Amino acid sequence: MALIIQKFGGTSVGDVDRIKNVARRIKSYVDAGNQVVAVLSARAGVTNELIARAKQINPHPDEREMDMLMTVGEQETIALMAIALQSIGQPAVSRTGAQAGIVTDFEHTRARIVEISGGDIPLLLSQGKVVIVAGFQGINKHGQATTLGRGGSDLSAIALAAALKADICQIFTDVDGVYTADPRVVPAARKIHEISYDEMLELASSGSKVMQSRSVEFAQKYNVTFEVRSSMNDNPGTLVKAEVPSMEDVVVSGIAVDKNQVKVVVSNLPDSPGVAAAIFEEIGAAKVVVDMIIQNVGREGRANLTFTTSNEDAHRATVAVDQACKKIGGGNVQQSGGIAKLSIVGVGMRSHSGVAAKLFKTLADASINIDMISTSEIKISVVIDLDKADRAARLVHSVFGLDAK
Amino acid sequence: MALIIQKFGGTSVGDVDRIKNVARRIKSYVDAGNQVVAVLSARAGVTNELIARAKQINPHPDEREMDMLMTVGEQETIALMAIALQSIGQPAVSRTGAQAGIVTDFEHTRARIVEISGGDIPLLLSQGKVVIVAGFQGINKHGQATTLGRGGSDLSAIALAAALKADICQIFTDVDGVYTADPRVVPAARKIHEISYDEMLELASSGSKVMQSRSVEFAQKYNVTFEVRSSMNDNPGTLVKAEVPSMEDVVVSGIAVDKNQVKVVVSNLPDSPGVAAAIFEEIGAAKVVVDMIIQNVGREGRANLTFTTSNEDAHRATVAVDQACKKIGGGNVQQSGGIAKLSIVGVGMRSHSGVAAKLFKTLADASINIDMISTSEIKISVVIDLDKADRAARLVHSVFGLDAK
Repeated sequence: MALIIQKFGGTSVGDVDRIKNVARRIKSYVDAGNQVVAVLSARAGVTNELIARAKQINPHPDEREMDMLMTVGEQETIALMAIALQSIGQPAVSRTGAQAGIVTDFEHTRARIVEISGGDIPLLLSQGKVVIVAGFQGINKHGQATTLGRGGSDLSAIALAAALKADICQIFTDVDGVYTADPRVVPAARKIHEISYDEMLELASSGSKVMQSRSVEFAQKYNVTFEVRSSMNDNPGTLVKAEVPSMEDVVVSGIAVDKNQVKVVVSNLPDSPGVAAAIFEEIGAAKVVVDMIIQNVGREGRANLTFTTSNEDAHRATVAVDQACKKIGGGNVQQSGGIAKLSIVGVGMRSHSGVAAKLFKTLADASINIDMISTSEIKISVVIDLDKADRAARLVHSVFGLDAK
Repeated sequence: MALIIQKFGGTSVGDVDRIKNVARRIKSYVDAGNQVVAVLSARAGVTNELIARAKQINPHPDEREMDMLMTVGEQETIALMAIALQSIGQPAVSRTGAQAGIVTDFEHTRARIVEISGGDIPLLLSQGKVVIVAGFQGINKHGQATTLGRGGSDLSAIALAAALKADICQIFTDVDGVYTADPRVVPAARKIHEISYDEMLELASSGSKVMQSRSVEFAQKYNVTFEVRSSMNDNPGTLVKAEVPSMEDVVVSGIAVDKNQVKVVVSNLPDSPGVAAAIFEEIGAAKVVVDMIIQNVGREGRANLTFTTSNEDAHRATVAVDQACKKIGGGNVQQSGGIAKLSIVGVGMRSHSGVAAKLFKTLADASINIDMISTSEIKISVVIDLDKADRAARLVHSVFGLDAK
């Protein structure tokens, strides 16, 4: 008998029929001899509706009250799911985040979990009940409801799996698992059978949107093995787990393309100590997330600085740099789009040499110019022209032996 | 400075604009120097929608899960109201029933309040905040959300007023107050300035639907003065309070007509001990609420028994009586509608004689036949033909000096 934590997102519980479907799926796991704790999101769209209603009243609503408001969505789905399970003869009971003992810090709307007791869940499981837990929400030590921010329900599920020492945590989603590349771009992409936390994190930070990084980090910290799989079919998904030696046999596990990139070039900077610091302090204060950074010395002792950021942050970044340049007394800022970041990820890179050279040669042979390069222990990223990104991804996918047979 | 508890129903918080209106009204009381705790219902229709969704999944959903589901409605409105108050510069904070320390028994969907601490409401008030509390809901001693059943938000407000020793509790509703009679039937009806708990209870049980009896009983038990007034205008409403001697000066305070009545006649019963008990045991087991009862001995030592009940309960009542007759070995049951109950209510009846005679004479002079009579210390009810009920109400209203000048 295994203890399984299952997480179902907002689309999976989007209406009464889908709730019934999920109930049948949960019951099939119980019938097979498992104990199940299911973590649910709000119905798709509900949280956004609530936010819209609040913003009609006040464009900048109080975050404590927003949490009081937003916890409503999951509370509805957990009660309906418990009722659906009972109606097919499966004893079930719902628990809010607070009742499940998910204790967070005091940061409303983006709280962090500080401890998790599980409440009476072990007792309920021992009574043969399925326990349905509200995802995305917790309670702080003042007894106030909090929410965990984007991707919060995944985090609830993984944290519960850690607290309850579950055998496995299944994240049911609208994709089949983690793929070697986006199948819409690379038709030969394959589902990955298993992948390490580090690889999953590098893929996420490189534009593969299966899960939020912090859920994966949490799983890694507490060594929770989880599976990303489809809520629409019974196919096995992708296991995300601690690295095992055999994983290094695969040089490249996956490829990610991030098209949501803008390049900011700051040229003609005085080449003196503290210039870069001054610029990135200003950028940090503007809450801009910077991705790749390259600095080199140009002609006549003037320095150039280039970095990439997301489309959303690009304008704020340019304004911040402009301000920094005025303080520094020099430098011109220029922003340009039309770029994409291609990344290859794999723990095998640690033990295999020549990976970077193979990547660069592949692109060069296809006349694809490399604009920027950045590397980590298990990832190599290059910035290239946006209109060549898809072709590059297909070529690289094939060269590194990822294509489906 | 007074402490005021204000209760707003589902229509008053039915959409964003109405929520803003209520927020302005609450603020006006604070600006006038008062402390305010506002108790809210769910948006009109929301609770019924949630129930409908649950019943689509399971026609007989688990009551614990129904409570988890239904508490959602108030949680939404309290958060939005707090946000609305903050947006007009009034510090405000929301509290669920659980956070307000409204502790109930374990009867899900119709819980009774067993104690009420008020939580941190006094502290919040002392900080200059308006506290918005979710009506209709509480928490049991196992930490599970409960709901208080029909009229539950009124009860929450009155219970909080008792716990916090409020100066007054205002029940904002869609009527202007309590009237001497239904103005749609008696155009000369007047709003009552103040009324005793007992009179309010007798009017409620006689078909005047302003408030549920149990809220009035709770107010009486804890001596909470409350005001029923309109959420649409600023007119003073009706004060419901402990009886004071001057109230006895008014012989009749109000008139109620209940048209939702059915008469059940059980004839030809053996006139032996235990027959009535046998019949009403069966009726009680069928959860039929009986109103008036009359028993008399007919010809040849056979007894007749007549009682009234509501339209909803009439069929179950007849079936139950039929069953009882079979057990007793005698009796025929017959059910008839087309009747109405007219009641006059007033604490002044205690000290004024001749009230009944005056009522009976008024009806006799108008050729209105009296079918049944029932009296209490402060009420006289008569059953008459349905089609004469409205005319009777206008006559009686005038005779007892209730008509507006």
